[in-house]
Amino acid sequence: MNLLLLDPAQIDPDGRAQVAGPALVHVREVLGKDLGATLRVGVLGGRRGHAAVVASTREALELMCTFDEDSPPKRPVELVLALPRPPVLRRLLAHVTAMGVQRIVLCHSARVEKSYWGSPALHSAEIDAHVRLGLEQACDTIPPQVEIRMKLRPFVEDELASRLDARRLVADPTGGAACPCDVEGPLVIAVGPEGGWVPVELGLWAEAGFECVHLGPRILRVETALIAVLARLGVA
Amino acid sequence: MNLLLLDPAQIDPDGRAQVAGPALVHVREVLGKDLGATLRVGVLGGRRGHAAVVASTREALELMCTFDEDSPPKRPVELVLALPRPPVLRRLLAHVTAMGVQRIVLCHSARVEKSYWGSPALHSAEIDAHVRLGLEQACDTIPPQVEIRMKLRPFVEDELASRLDARRLVADPTGGAACPCDVEGPLVIAVGPEGGWVPVELGLWAEAGFECVHLGPRILRVETALIAVLARLGVA
Repeated sequence: MNLLLLDPAQIDPDGRAQVAGPALVHVREVLGKDLGATLRVGVLGGRRGHAAVVASTREALELMCTFDEDSPPKRPVELVLALPRPPVLRRLLAHVTAMGVQRIVLCHSARVEKSYWGSPALHSAEIDAHVRLGLEQACDTIPPQVEIRMKLRPFVEDELASRLDARRLVADPTGGAACPCDVEGPLVIAVGPEGGWVPVELGLWAEAGFECVHLGPRILRVETALIAVLARLGVA
Repeated sequence: MNLLLLDPAQIDPDGRAQVAGPALVHVREVLGKDLGATLRVGVLGGRRGHAAVVASTREALELMCTFDEDSPPKRPVELVLALPRPPVLRRLLAHVTAMGVQRIVLCHSARVEKSYWGSPALHSAEIDAHVRLGLEQACDTIPPQVEIRMKLRPFVEDELASRLDARRLVADPTGGAACPCDVEGPLVIAVGPEGGWVPVELGLWAEAGFECVHLGPRILRVETALIAVLARLGVA
């Protein structure tokens, strides 16, 4: 945690905030901060700044906060991700949030196991918790939108095919071109499941105007490939 | 597992190999392959190809293998990595092996907790197991060299400063230039611990001819940053 994220309701109009529970334990035991210390803070959905610990009891810390800085800029990047295994999803939400992706859409694909859709990892409280870890890592305060589309075809045909404002890429080992570097402007990037998109899905992406790009001859795990593609495109 | 890695001693001169234990369970239960099926195989340190399952008992599968293909090429890239937390080290060894790094040197740094050096994750059998996962993921057969240097200064001054053949980079949020894309030729890249290199270490890298590069204004976890840097440089 490089920044302590506070909820707006936690903060008084004069900038005072109480910190208790797991956040208190983290600040005290991991960051080693207590009365008199200062730390980086941010308001979820708002600005960021610094806080001084002005009171400390066994149950809570009182912070006096100043929010004088905007959150780091986000590139206009949307990620469409075939739903990964739940433990991988949890890690990826944090990685991708930290990298500054603006919108994440979790979608179905032929090689996604149906049982993943019933996982508690998709409950909004769990998604929010992992997004929050990513924000606190990157000193960001603005969460990405996270959405779910359980039917791939209508999502691609009705929502994505008309996104002519954005450069649209789909990552696949069969891709015709190497993944480009430092692409400017709005971007939609689709990343498939372990084992890749099936041919009918690749046809769907092509018809919707997505360029197919690859990362070389090695088959990478989704986790590696996703971070690699975003980094090459210049996200983060 | 996209390729089943066999030890040379497991394979008869005529290409027959017995598969038992955890590999058998994986082939049968995860890959769903048994008598009559074919699968991708490779010899650890050697070539790769295909195998047919020609016999199947409860305890073992017998494969008839043909090794007719070289392993995927590796870029001449060496990674110097400040020893991460043991669970992160395990994952990173697999990621980095899959990406095709040729040599990995785990080193000390002021922000590496001393206790990490006592972890079983550094035992050679554990390192080999995670390297193997990375090879089997990327259909590779040639493991990277993994080495350990517990003293950073003599390693940098005596071994790395004279590596004039290679472009030498050190990743740090304080870096003067954005991490470049698709760098050709031999490369040494140093990636620090969570929290980054301390100033005296950055001085050491600079004196040894390392260019300091950054990944933008966001603070990323070592796991994210390492994959991101390698992907930008064109490794994988």
